[in-house]
Amino acid sequence: MDNCKRIFIATACILNVISALQPGNWGSCENGESIPTRTNTSLRVEALRAEMVKEKLGAYIVPSEDFHMSEFVSSYDERRFYISGFDGSMGTAVITATHAALWTRGKYFLQAETQLGCDWILMREREPGVPTIEEWLGEQLENQAVKKVGACPYFFGNDAWLDYEKSLEQHGLRLGQTVPDLIDKIWTDDRPAFPDTVINSYPLKYAGKSWQDKVQEVQEEMKKKNADVLIVTMLDETAWLFNMRATDIRGFVNDPFFYSLAIVRPSSVSLYIKNKEMKLTANPTDQESDQTIKDHLNTRADGSCRKNSNKMCVEVKEYNYVSFIMDLDALAGNATIKRIWLSYFCNYAVYTMIPQDKIYVDNTPVAMLKTQKNDVEVQGMTNSHIRDAAALAIFASKLEKGVKSGETWTEVSASNELTRLRSLQDLNRGDSFASISSSGSNAAIIHYFPTNTTDRRITANDIYLIDSGGQYLDGTTDVTRTFLWRDPTAFEKECYTRVLMGQINLAMAVWTKGLFGREIDAWARQPLFDVGLTFKHGTGHGIGHYLSVHEGPGRISNYHAKFDWDVPLAEHMFYSDEPGYYEDGKFGIRLENIVYVKKVETKYSMKGVTMLGMETVTLFPYETHLIDYSKMSGKQISWLNAYNAKTLEKVGKLLKDQDAMEAYEWVEKRTKKIETTSGSTTTIASNFIIYSLLLLYLIW
Amino acid sequence: MDNCKRIFIATACILNVISALQPGNWGSCENGESIPTRTNTSLRVEALRAEMVKEKLGAYIVPSEDFHMSEFVSSYDERRFYISGFDGSMGTAVITATHAALWTRGKYFLQAETQLGCDWILMREREPGVPTIEEWLGEQLENQAVKKVGACPYFFGNDAWLDYEKSLEQHGLRLGQTVPDLIDKIWTDDRPAFPDTVINSYPLKYAGKSWQDKVQEVQEEMKKKNADVLIVTMLDETAWLFNMRATDIRGFVNDPFFYSLAIVRPSSVSLYIKNKEMKLTANPTDQESDQTIKDHLNTRADGSCRKNSNKMCVEVKEYNYVSFIMDLDALAGNATIKRIWLSYFCNYAVYTMIPQDKIYVDNTPVAMLKTQKNDVEVQGMTNSHIRDAAALAIFASKLEKGVKSGETWTEVSASNELTRLRSLQDLNRGDSFASISSSGSNAAIIHYFPTNTTDRRITANDIYLIDSGGQYLDGTTDVTRTFLWRDPTAFEKECYTRVLMGQINLAMAVWTKGLFGREIDAWARQPLFDVGLTFKHGTGHGIGHYLSVHEGPGRISNYHAKFDWDVPLAEHMFYSDEPGYYEDGKFGIRLENIVYVKKVETKYSMKGVTMLGMETVTLFPYETHLIDYSKMSGKQISWLNAYNAKTLEKVGKLLKDQDAMEAYEWVEKRTKKIETTSGSTTTIASNFIIYSLLLLYLIW
Repeated sequence: MDNCKRIFIATACILNVISALQPGNWGSCENGESIPTRTNTSLRVEALRAEMVKEKLGAYIVPSEDFHMSEFVSSYDERRFYISGFDGSMGTAVITATHAALWTRGKYFLQAETQLGCDWILMREREPGVPTIEEWLGEQLENQAVKKVGACPYFFGNDAWLDYEKSLEQHGLRLGQTVPDLIDKIWTDDRPAFPDTVINSYPLKYAGKSWQDKVQEVQEEMKKKNADVLIVTMLDETAWLFNMRATDIRGFVNDPFFYSLAIVRPSSVSLYIKNKEMKLTANPTDQESDQTIKDHLNTRADGSCRKNSNKMCVEVKEYNYVSFIMDLDALAGNATIKRIWLSYFCNYAVYTMIPQDKIYVDNTPVAMLKTQKNDVEVQGMTNSHIRDAAALAIFASKLEKGVKSGETWTEVSASNELTRLRSLQDLNRGDSFASISSSGSNAAIIHYFPTNTTDRRITANDIYLIDSGGQYLDGTTDVTRTFLWRDPTAFEKECYTRVLMGQINLAMAVWTKGLFGREIDAWARQPLFDVGLTFKHGTGHGIGHYLSVHEGPGRISNYHAKFDWDVPLAEHMFYSDEPGYYEDGKFGIRLENIVYVKKVETKYSMKGVTMLGMETVTLFPYETHLIDYSKMSGKQISWLNAYNAKTLEKVGKLLKDQDAMEAYEWVEKRTKKIETTSGSTTTIASNFIIYSLLLLYLIW
Repeated sequence: MDNCKRIFIATACILNVISALQPGNWGSCENGESIPTRTNTSLRVEALRAEMVKEKLGAYIVPSEDFHMSEFVSSYDERRFYISGFDGSMGTAVITATHAALWTRGKYFLQAETQLGCDWILMREREPGVPTIEEWLGEQLENQAVKKVGACPYFFGNDAWLDYEKSLEQHGLRLGQTVPDLIDKIWTDDRPAFPDTVINSYPLKYAGKSWQDKVQEVQEEMKKKNADVLIVTMLDETAWLFNMRATDIRGFVNDPFFYSLAIVRPSSVSLYIKNKEMKLTANPTDQESDQTIKDHLNTRADGSCRKNSNKMCVEVKEYNYVSFIMDLDALAGNATIKRIWLSYFCNYAVYTMIPQDKIYVDNTPVAMLKTQKNDVEVQGMTNSHIRDAAALAIFASKLEKGVKSGETWTEVSASNELTRLRSLQDLNRGDSFASISSSGSNAAIIHYFPTNTTDRRITANDIYLIDSGGQYLDGTTDVTRTFLWRDPTAFEKECYTRVLMGQINLAMAVWTKGLFGREIDAWARQPLFDVGLTFKHGTGHGIGHYLSVHEGPGRISNYHAKFDWDVPLAEHMFYSDEPGYYEDGKFGIRLENIVYVKKVETKYSMKGVTMLGMETVTLFPYETHLIDYSKMSGKQISWLNAYNAKTLEKVGKLLKDQDAMEAYEWVEKRTKKIETTSGSTTTIASNFIIYSLLLLYLIW
């Protein structure tokens, strides 16, 4: 999946503005046309305004985020969608007594135009003349008596809140904390239920490490930093730490999380979950899960700790923002507690509970331990990628045959078929995210997802890009391949080849431990740079193990701003390696593999210097007729030959075992050895002929 | 010149610890041996302690920096050297009532051991068990009544001061501002005079832009950022802005600066210089300078502005820390002034004069305009590099002949001869820094400078590395080459080749505008990385135009921490391209060229995307017998052939003009075309023979 940044730092994410999709007249309110995609939110806005009056607010800001600063939120948490009707993943709604406006980025302009009610103003961020939220509010409230702007601190990161506060102040306005959130007050009918799925314990044979061992390691890291308390607010961190999974976040992504919070102390650990008594005793719903959460966490049915046992236990408390905040307040006020460890990703409400002299901000030890996979996780990732490749090969061979024979395939039908094929693989637990199944010009839209209104037929004439992944009990996958079932133009072939060369450059890179991903990202761009091209997204994101398809804090990207939370690449981390090239309005090419960072052996060694490299765990062939081998170096071709051989060996074998012979042959055809002389694809035979002719000429 | 960081952020500079020079017993105080390199500073320390008692200080900190946070300071400003006897460029002295200690880094351990008096403690920074300054002071003053630590805020950067303050507080201590500095109080006898060299106006034909135009551009940039005042404290910034040069900083570097400060406002500009009335009217000492500073700046003899003129004028004031600080105080208190622009490199005393709500911190527009050279400066840099290469070629050919024929050459004598040869070139104004002339194991010391005690004979058996540069009226140079006058070992040859390949990789790199140097640095390391090697310094530093040999704010380095002041690579900037490899205790290889960043044409282009590349302006041949061409790519060899051809054309021509025929032949021999087949150095002939034999075998 192409990596943007975490949504709560949305301002740093520069997205590709697709010129082909510049807003036109389609569905604009000016011509009075009513279109079904538009939601009339007037009554909701009026209800919000009534609450604003009660709170004496001149304006109210509704962001995209949830309490956990999740990159993707559940439908319960889609407050901004509710008030505005716009359901893109990125956008901020601002409502005053007289106006309602939505700020979003280029890729969402068209979608926002067709979703926002006609009483909304679309603010095209970063377009010339478009004001910032603070500038606009400064103007709107200039002659108003009420200078206070409200927002709920639960749904803003600390930095974002402070930036708003400072910037509003410069415009003569004041940002006030509004708790509870006003949308929560007015959104009572037709609100999706708070996600409340059964939590399954995650078996040790997949997790590789018990939650008790994880907690102990976390406590050791806390000790190193003299931290008396660790606050854990991110949902993938609680899921990983306690070896538990659920399905609370379903939608664009399938993140197997459950709403939760945790507090770790040197000799105790508390977990906050919703509906704790039901969850603790519920029977597992996953066939591989064999005990209740209560037994898994060694607690009593009321969540209290089984202290009579010698084993570690978790105190389970009811998940509730207010009670959690009050618990933080008590910790903050405790004189024996000197240092409280917060993540960069805590919301402003959490931050403000902790006095400045007690705050220690860093990536949590949970995040850092999680990102460096253990041996069982590494093996699971490797295995799940082979099964995933088998499903994708069955899909790709079927699609190619179908498209070539004139069957009707569309972006949506192809995506559905791939989901079905993945579900047939062992341990599959659904897709990891909604497939980016995109044909022709749609493939140029980096974050495109097909819907019924945009669905395009897949034809042999158009480039087809599929970026998809699966959740498996033993791993998470994310893979992109690009197809074209006709002869490519010279430009298409050059682009595909250079994207592949970039991917291989990164895959075979060797570097000194300590470098950040942003410092090796350019290697993947070099073949494109050489001819004046690039791609407007990062080269790689981290990926979880049966967790997030985008996992922080590390990344391989020089495309965004520098972030404090970025960490150097290190052994046992998994990243995507996904260069691309996008020709606006025409086509898009992206090739994405998942790679595993590991120590490598080199010819020489230096004292104190560790060399790292990558092993590619995604094993899926490339489209050979789209590759111009003459552009590639001998080293790149050697890498490709080894990759192809391994793909045939591992994925081919599985396809045979699954009796998927058409897919096997499809893979086999694409993984034949490429013959080269050193450094060039001129074959030995052709050289031999040339020299022979020369010799014969000389002899005769 | 190898690039470390600016000295005022010394803590971020991780230097190479040379195992060959680990402290031994040589000259240690334990065995009572008296050595001439040691300075007895006991009386000075006692005098300082007497002042500390008066000020009620438990300890006093003496850093390396001057008021301007210069990377290299004048001998007048060597306060830390005065109190400790240690003259390395990096180190901090701390004195309590009973102890005196000096903190420095690995490369200076030996030097400090032989220079510090026996009543000093050498604190080997970053060695196991060595406390930080704050930790040590915490212990030393634990049972003392006096908890105040003194330091002069003039000589600390803002961040450094705040870090000390916070960290000392954690150890129960308080940092107090001591003005005037206590060393300035006690260092009265035998102190070098405050540098007070004549300031020459710098002719427009070399500067390319009048100071009036520069000031106007600076004022335009201030307007864009709503800045009412700009404070200029860095010495290269005043020299560049006002088109004036002097020789106040002489020593390890020859920075053609004059002690000065400036304040720019929307419609006025003030310059503070020492001894202003003498300087304004003094006759120029540089033969190319044709007017007094008074006329150049359009001022009266007393420094007041010639306001009757239509031309812009500078108000010249007397340089004095206290009066400058008081002027800042007046500006800070002026209600009409809302925003004051400070550089990241202002000292703490300057920072604290400006109220927080008026401070705007960023690289100054002077620094940003200065780093992007104008056309005249670019031409001057190009031309001066050709003359510099001619001097170096005459030197290298002479040295080679001498060493091979058994003449006695040492690191010092070679360095002196090169200085002499440079001085014979047109427009030369001395070296830009003391040459790193290093033989054998000394060459493994990245920041080595030969002294009479370390001087080594240069022999045909040892690798010889010379890193040197010149100041010319039309540019500043910095070049490194490595020589060996015997057959190399396979390892030496591989290292030299891979360093060269790295240098070429960067020289021929193409990238999208917007990337930082740190993001392409790894390209220069890749050939070394591939075999497990690297070098422990950045790949490139900026360089000035008849200014600093190290010029900020940009750099090409992923070796140090990330800095706020770093800026993306942009057109018209000059950087060094200097990968290396150092085998501790044995040899060092470094190849350094200066490159010019420019827009490049590429096969394709993308809307809104600018591609940048480099042109190498240092034209000096490599040692062909140290290169294994079979390791290089066809593209690298093509680059090298073009480079060699240009070197022979430009530098060869000049050598002929100068009748330096031995040097010409020396260059000619090294710049012959390397013949290759595509992508490999296997010649056509040898391929032909192989295939012919094969054919004959088949025929018979």
